[in-house]
Amino acid sequence: MRRRYAVARALVEMRADTATKVAENEIEKGDVLACARIAGIQGAKRAAELIPSALPVMVGGVTVDFEIGAVAIAITARVEALGLSGVSTEALTCASVAALTIYDMCKAIDRSMTITEVVVEEHGADDVAIWRRALP
Amino acid sequence: MRRRYAVARALVEMRADTATKVAENEIEKGDVLACARIAGIQGAKRAAELIPSALPVMVGGVTVDFEIGAVAIAITARVEALGLSGVSTEALTCASVAALTIYDMCKAIDRSMTITEVVVEEHGADDVAIWRRALP
Amino acid sequence: MRRRYAVARALVEMRADTATKVAENEIEKGDVLACARIAGIQGAKRAAELIPSALPVMVGGVTVDFEIGAVAIAITARVEALGLSGVSTEALTCASVAALTIYDMCKAIDRSMTITEVVVEEHGADDVAIWRRALP
Amino acid sequence: MRRRYAVARALVEMRADTATKVAENEIEKGDVLACARIAGIQGAKRAAELIPSALPVMVGGVTVDFEIGAVAIAITARVEALGLSGVSTEALTCASVAALTIYDMCKAIDRSMTITEVVVEEHGADDVAIWRRALP
Amino acid sequence: MRRRYAVARALVEMRADTATKVAENEIEKGDVLACARIAGIQGAKRAAELIPSALPVMVGGVTVDFEIGAVAIAITARVEALGLSGVSTEALTCASVAALTIYDMCKAIDRSMTITEVVVEEHGADDVAIWRRALP
Amino acid sequence: MRRRYAVARALVEMRADTATKVAENEIEKGDVLACARIAGIQGAKRAAELIPSALPVMVGGVTVDFEIGAVAIAITARVEALGLSGVSTEALTCASVAALTIYDMCKAIDRSMTITEVVVEEHGADDVAIWRRALP
Repeated sequence: MRRRYAVARALVEMRADTATKVAENEIEKGDVLACARIAGIQGAKRAAELIPSALPVMVGGVTVDFEIGAVAIAITARVEALGLSGVSTEALTCASVAALTIYDMCKAIDRSMTITEVVVEEHGADDVAIWRRALP
Repeated sequence: MRRRYAVARALVEMRADTATKVAENEIEKGDVLACARIAGIQGAKRAAELIPSALPVMVGGVTVDFEIGAVAIAITARVEALGLSGVSTEALTCASVAALTIYDMCKAIDRSMTITEVVVEEHGADDVAIWRRALP
Repeated sequence: MRRRYAVARALVEMRADTATKVAENEIEKGDVLACARIAGIQGAKRAAELIPSALPVMVGGVTVDFEIGAVAIAITARVEALGLSGVSTEALTCASVAALTIYDMCKAIDRSMTITEVVVEEHGADDVAIWRRALP
Repeated sequence: MRRRYAVARALVEMRADTATKVAENEIEKGDVLACARIAGIQGAKRAAELIPSALPVMVGGVTVDFEIGAVAIAITARVEALGLSGVSTEALTCASVAALTIYDMCKAIDRSMTITEVVVEEHGADDVAIWRRALP
Repeated sequence: MRRRYAVARALVEMRADTATKVAENEIEKGDVLACARIAGIQGAKRAAELIPSALPVMVGGVTVDFEIGAVAIAITARVEALGLSGVSTEALTCASVAALTIYDMCKAIDRSMTITEVVVEEHGADDVAIWRRALP
Repeated sequence: MRRRYAVARALVEMRADTATKVAENEIEKGDVLACARIAGIQGAKRAAELIPSALPVMVGGVTVDFEIGAVAIAITARVEALGLSGVSTEALTCASVAALTIYDMCKAIDRSMTITEVVVEEHGADDVAIWRRALP
């Protein structure tokens, strides 16, 4: 068993005023990024429950970072686990669930949000990349 | 309580040969679309477990449809429920989990897939739309 | 919405000495019937999580009864719920999970147990049967 | 830790016309065997959640096969896991949940189905049987 | 069905420097109160999964508030639901899970924390108290 | 990986007649201690689902013991697991969920119960204590 890692990202496109409200923590339902981070972490642990073809993984560390742009929030999720197989599905699930939470918390003011560019960036073992996404 | 519905969609972009293999049911891990459909249905029922701000909903019917294009699979999810509030988050979760399952089942042959255009199309009550996404 | 009910049963066939040990609460893993009853109750609530085609149900009452015979334990499960549709799948799930728990707790001394005759007996609404299993 | 395996089976008895409809994929609720297979796989991963006395297992592979007879569907489930203890309960849970799903999807046309002969056939480690069910 | 509510509270006693670190958001594992709030909300929705005797409830709103004292954090949880029965167990579960999360996030620097005074304060329907805890 | 253990306890204070009814198994909702024990065991396995900062643990053994006093029930929970990190959060969760179950089953006759003194007593590896709670 080796220490596996994977990095995934997602983008939630939204109106400029919605992004501003998230940045200034003014969304009525609560702290959007804190909530999305925790939802993403919990989602990473549950990938095998959600996805029939995914096997249980002993997730050993999850980080979720956000970058708020003018009209979008970029999500970067990193998942680590000790195991025989990679954790790219867990990282992708983490980023997706964080994105779904942003949608749910902001939809009252901006229903046209789009979740897009949900991709695995890189995965590897013992801090060495096994695969990296080609630059677009 | 009224009968609520929502329609969401997602797109999984992939290589042409991957799309062909899915269409011809030749992916080694199993029947991709059957698996993605069921994962999406189960995901719709669990939206409130995944997303802290989502409240429990008595999901009363879920359909997941796929359209296989040359280099992408389009997912359309429709969720119905009897309740006081809409089910757009449930439909978006359904489409997302179906997309994650397609990724997981095809990643052995095509790791560069992109999940994109995850959006709510429409939601309403008693078959009347309350909101429809503007055409792009 | 009406008050729905369903009754299901299952039989766990085992060796005579195993049945005696269960009756005398001498199984090393703990109180078999208490454990099976609670597992069955929790299983009834989770039928929609286990079975893709099952919809969420607001389970409103579950009872699980056991009859210890010479070489088998008979399980009778009754599930009630307020709703639009029947609860026969919930009752069948309840009886099955109780049976699986009996197997798990006794397998160290009797691995040849057979779970058999898992059937819905009756289901109805407002205490009136809609369907009853024909006598064999 | 060794690679453990277990094989379990279950039989769902039904009317001849029901078995024919399943075989010809004409059940209105959807593809019965695809749905039952996935439900069984997900059930194997959740045995420890359903059964209090079962410990968590890192399920490493599940296969579910069906044989449609004249008046019954036979289910064979095989579960593998790396661990200290056997996985017979996981295999039995897998077969049971697949059987419950067949019931749920066919009950609209045949409510008298019986789930029967739910048994562990064999379990072992590193492809060597530790125990095999005696022939009847 | 009426709109039910219940209020519960819990106290997590800790060292003064631990309470100060939580107040200043300096705990290494992350934002303790944001995490505890979300864990509490999710716990309220899952009371029926955790507690065999609890029935499913359509939780319709949860708030979790904290007051940081010199050597303790006080948690107040309020749960609302539309239903036939009260939600005091859901509120108590909410407060308990929030307290467990505070323990887990702070235990690296203060293992002697005590969760105490976990009680239901009040429960009622349509904003009218049915029961109120007597003053100590 | 070493064999980790942790011991936690909790106290449920109640009226004398309630404690007597629990001791004599006269609570209408069922066998309180059997139910609380199983709920605690299942809760220990689910700590990582409830608590965002907790990582999945392969729980390898849980015992829950009760001591019925004149006006309180004392709960002692011991959790074991093979792993890299301790299991004190799992033991605390186990004791808490057992306490919540006692509350839920007795609340019909005694709503003023208090869950108190929920603490980790000791945790260690390979039967050697790494940390022990100081005497009060």
